[in-house]
Amino acid sequence: MPVNYREPTELLPVAGVRLGVAEAAIKKPGRKDLLVIALAEGSRVGGVFTQNAFAAAPVQVCRQRLGAGAIRALLVNSGNANAATGAQGLQSARESCAAVASALGLSAEAVLPFSTGVIGQQLPVARMVAAAPAAVADLRETGWLDAMRAIMTTDTVGKGASRRVVTSQGEVTVTGIAKGVGMIHPNMATMLAYIGTDARLTPAATQTLIAEVADRSFNCVTVDGDTSTNDACVLFATAQVGSAEVDAGHRDYPLIAAAVEAVCLELAHAIVRDGEGATKFVSIEVGGARDRAEARAVALSIAHSPLVKTALFASDANWGRIAMAIGKAGVEGLDVSRVDISLDAVPVIVGGQPHPDYAEAKGAAVVAQDEFLIRVGLARGAASATVWTCDFSYDYVKINAEYRT
Amino acid sequence: MPVNYREPTELLPVAGVRLGVAEAAIKKPGRKDLLVIALAEGSRVGGVFTQNAFAAAPVQVCRQRLGAGAIRALLVNSGNANAATGAQGLQSARESCAAVASALGLSAEAVLPFSTGVIGQQLPVARMVAAAPAAVADLRETGWLDAMRAIMTTDTVGKGASRRVVTSQGEVTVTGIAKGVGMIHPNMATMLAYIGTDARLTPAATQTLIAEVADRSFNCVTVDGDTSTNDACVLFATAQVGSAEVDAGHRDYPLIAAAVEAVCLELAHAIVRDGEGATKFVSIEVGGARDRAEARAVALSIAHSPLVKTALFASDANWGRIAMAIGKAGVEGLDVSRVDISLDAVPVIVGGQPHPDYAEAKGAAVVAQDEFLIRVGLARGAASATVWTCDFSYDYVKINAEYRT
Repeated sequence: MPVNYREPTELLPVAGVRLGVAEAAIKKPGRKDLLVIALAEGSRVGGVFTQNAFAAAPVQVCRQRLGAGAIRALLVNSGNANAATGAQGLQSARESCAAVASALGLSAEAVLPFSTGVIGQQLPVARMVAAAPAAVADLRETGWLDAMRAIMTTDTVGKGASRRVVTSQGEVTVTGIAKGVGMIHPNMATMLAYIGTDARLTPAATQTLIAEVADRSFNCVTVDGDTSTNDACVLFATAQVGSAEVDAGHRDYPLIAAAVEAVCLELAHAIVRDGEGATKFVSIEVGGARDRAEARAVALSIAHSPLVKTALFASDANWGRIAMAIGKAGVEGLDVSRVDISLDAVPVIVGGQPHPDYAEAKGAAVVAQDEFLIRVGLARGAASATVWTCDFSYDYVKINAEYRT
Repeated sequence: MPVNYREPTELLPVAGVRLGVAEAAIKKPGRKDLLVIALAEGSRVGGVFTQNAFAAAPVQVCRQRLGAGAIRALLVNSGNANAATGAQGLQSARESCAAVASALGLSAEAVLPFSTGVIGQQLPVARMVAAAPAAVADLRETGWLDAMRAIMTTDTVGKGASRRVVTSQGEVTVTGIAKGVGMIHPNMATMLAYIGTDARLTPAATQTLIAEVADRSFNCVTVDGDTSTNDACVLFATAQVGSAEVDAGHRDYPLIAAAVEAVCLELAHAIVRDGEGATKFVSIEVGGARDRAEARAVALSIAHSPLVKTALFASDANWGRIAMAIGKAGVEGLDVSRVDISLDAVPVIVGGQPHPDYAEAKGAAVVAQDEFLIRVGLARGAASATVWTCDFSYDYVKINAEYRT
């Protein structure tokens, strides 16, 4: 059960974006596991991808094609990651794209491939090629909810969000879908996110916007600290609203950027809320840092510590483990006698020592909730960062130990 | 139950080292929780300590006193870490040392304090001061086994090892004890290790030797990747054997160093074998790296990955997770098409892809064992490193979630 999150029952269509699904029996039969997203001519596409050296074949193909020419469609499969599959994996990714391109009357290079699922097995290309026409035949502007479900793997709920903003050129819609229940889950899953808007963002602004927003949303959530071979986050802008190009300096840009960020944050939080075995949704805010990287390093050190995460699961206000995680974050010259820690509004550590009024019961009341904030002050600068994480439960071990058995 | 490890029933006495224990009711009554180790005049002491910024009060006092003057005794308590305790914590560490010094007729600065246990609570100094004479009265050369048990916290077995080597100046004995069931366990535990020898190592050689050996033993094991506020590893050389000083260039040095390393490795492995919830003892060897730091980073990335560790628990030969952990280790310019992975003697990945003869059953047979080797080749240099770790089980979550409740 996700922590305070329900699968959306409605997602707003985006002019210029059509979505269709089909069954390709990639991992098992009887499931829509193939998704095609078709974009109107003139659409602009930007994306950010995994930093893992074992980047999957589809990620390598995406990197080659993005920026090389116009992108008109995306092909996504669940059930097989097409990672650690060598030259044959690259060939498979290109062949399956070609099938979609052929059904849509496009060049193969206009289609981006995405895969999520088991590592180290070759894609069942023949079945994907055979199913591609059915997915193309299914294309419709109202296909977002079906698309959201087609990309799920071990997700317990589909993840989607929409926003609408009024710009100087008219109403702009942003809708996004995502899947993933760990920062990564390399054997079966991995984070994928697709955000569509009908705004007329310039190609450069599309890429800049998704890179910046991903850094403040998807890159700030962690379930287990592992980094996938297949992570991908793509923004497509179909240029259906208005006639003036919106670059980063245009007055509509902040409005559109805020809507895209709101959608991405909602999706990123949904991933944590549905994190493997999660029973709590915890925000970790670190302030008083010299720069954002330092604040982020401390926040992630807390968020990644198995000892902190098991204490969160136990509703144990074990601030000693939080202090430990701050201390091991590698902040050069940290003066621990200036460090503050609070749980929601309860000051726990002030100036490196327990606050005189702190009592175990006060901290316990905060961490007994299913959502709360850990706030850390380093008192050495003005920068801050927030990350979101979940706890570490028996079910995390169960899900990951039993996944393939 | 530790993985293939039994508590020793005999430890060799070391001339010049006497050990005594007493009850101070630090956490609960009825337990020997205070240990005094007295060293013969002329002993040389070296030590390495936690890198955590929240270093506990006793660690701070140790750092001041080591090198400042002759060390003649160590005082260790379990049940309270004396960490995040501010100025009062430093005062408590000094006061408890003074009680031991007084009973032994030494200056307070000749005593090193060590604490392990709960963070953020003040030491019960009065009870420790009251119990110090009893520990001093109990001092004997045969006290190693009792000492080993006095420093345990959540350890399920005591950890100790002895070696004897014949040097040009006569027979040298090395005996060590350690405690700890996580690389760290900051709320209750933390790694402590004490190694004694009667060799006449110079003060400089004593410090160099323990730093080097700790780097190849204790710093190469990990249970959960967290770093304690109290970690300490101390070597004392009582200079009872021979009359010639043994520095790093002396012909006896390699013999003595090898014995110290053998004792430390045995203790370090015992910590992993008794790791919280451990059901498997896994060696991870990374070769073909440009330098040792690179090899170590890759080995630790595998050893720290919760996804790898839960797969090990499940006896799942999930090499995709190993590949993921290699890929996220941050090795600049890693060519994954040259990476090899094997499980014991079974080649799994060769040149970045599954070996043609690999079958799931072959990998499964290896990881079904309670001890095995994961070997990784990076094919970019000649450096290598080995780390040792355990799996991540339901019991890890249980132990750490329920510890304070």
